[in-house]
Amino acid sequence: MCAAHHGYLTQKSSHLARLKRVEGQVRGLQRMVEDEQYCIDILTQVSAVTKALESAALALLAEHMNHCVVDAARQGDDEARAKVDEAMAAISRLVK
Amino acid sequence: MCAAHHGYLTQKSSHLARLKRVEGQVRGLQRMVEDEQYCIDILTQVSAVTKALESAALALLAEHMNHCVVDAARQGDDEARAKVDEAMAAISRLVK
Amino acid sequence: MCAAHHGYLTQKSSHLARLKRVEGQVRGLQRMVEDEQYCIDILTQVSAVTKALESAALALLAEHMNHCVVDAARQGDDEARAKVDEAMAAISRLVK
Amino acid sequence: MCAAHHGYLTQKSSHLARLKRVEGQVRGLQRMVEDEQYCIDILTQVSAVTKALESAALALLAEHMNHCVVDAARQGDDEARAKVDEAMAAISRLVK
Repeated sequence: MCAAHHGYLTQKSSHLARLKRVEGQVRGLQRMVEDEQYCIDILTQVSAVTKALESAALALLAEHMNHCVVDAARQGDDEARAKVDEAMAAISRLVK
Repeated sequence: MCAAHHGYLTQKSSHLARLKRVEGQVRGLQRMVEDEQYCIDILTQVSAVTKALESAALALLAEHMNHCVVDAARQGDDEARAKVDEAMAAISRLVK
Repeated sequence: MCAAHHGYLTQKSSHLARLKRVEGQVRGLQRMVEDEQYCIDILTQVSAVTKALESAALALLAEHMNHCVVDAARQGDDEARAKVDEAMAAISRLVK
Repeated sequence: MCAAHHGYLTQKSSHLARLKRVEGQVRGLQRMVEDEQYCIDILTQVSAVTKALESAALALLAEHMNHCVVDAARQGDDEARAKVDEAMAAISRLVK
């Protein structure tokens, strides 16, 4: 586990605000289906929500790298390797 | 615009249920940030939500293809071309 | 199988030219590694090659939709459903 | 720029072998088009090549993180921040 203080906590409120917006966008998708809007318009909005989620993930990842990975690098080789492997697994899930 | 009856309407409730689940997952992400959980665990969950959204989009697209694109193909070449171009633009946004 | 004449054959040479460019880009990546260039510069080029491949796939898909899927739609419901299912499986592989 | 020795150089031959395979796969795509094979079969192979490229990118990124980012973290905060920002830009291009 990272040091007691996770990197993203310095920006906790902005991460929460971003996820609140995504929640609102998903509810917007539900309304589009409720209102029986045109399929392609809904698909366009799904792409927008996916992009918003990707941005939220990249923002969290950046802070994890800047804090947890950098801290681990300074602790030692084993800590650095473990933290990088863990980050790469998360990055792989985002890419694939 | 597609015929008065969009393809996805035959499965309207299942599309809505799927989007309700995504909304719940996004609120789950917010709780993880509120609870200051570990960054990588949150990123893992973001990937799961992204996959759920992709599945929702593909389900909507399949019905659009099976109804709106097939209907247009039967109306004539111009209608078919316009509907395929529109679907390809949506597919491109999902792929890119 | 689609009608004797696959949709993309009308643009066969441009599809080939596009894939030739991708081949050249991949060889360019090899030279970057041979020349021991900076990791990030190589990663930037990998992203460019991935985008070129996506464009090649979308171009092929568009013609498949405009010819094979439209033809199948005009043959009958079973043919249309089979062809759309097949196209959706290919689209899903591109999206995921 | 990273230390004189880029992380991936310890595995230079395996990176090159991987990219040689991708080159072979792309030439395989060209043959499929030359032989006028079925569109969906070509699209299936394009997805396979894209996945191979993603794996090549992730392998390069892992070594960049394990060497260049870790080295920069040990040099100082400014070096760490610059190297993480650079890596995040590359990761963002891979994700988007």
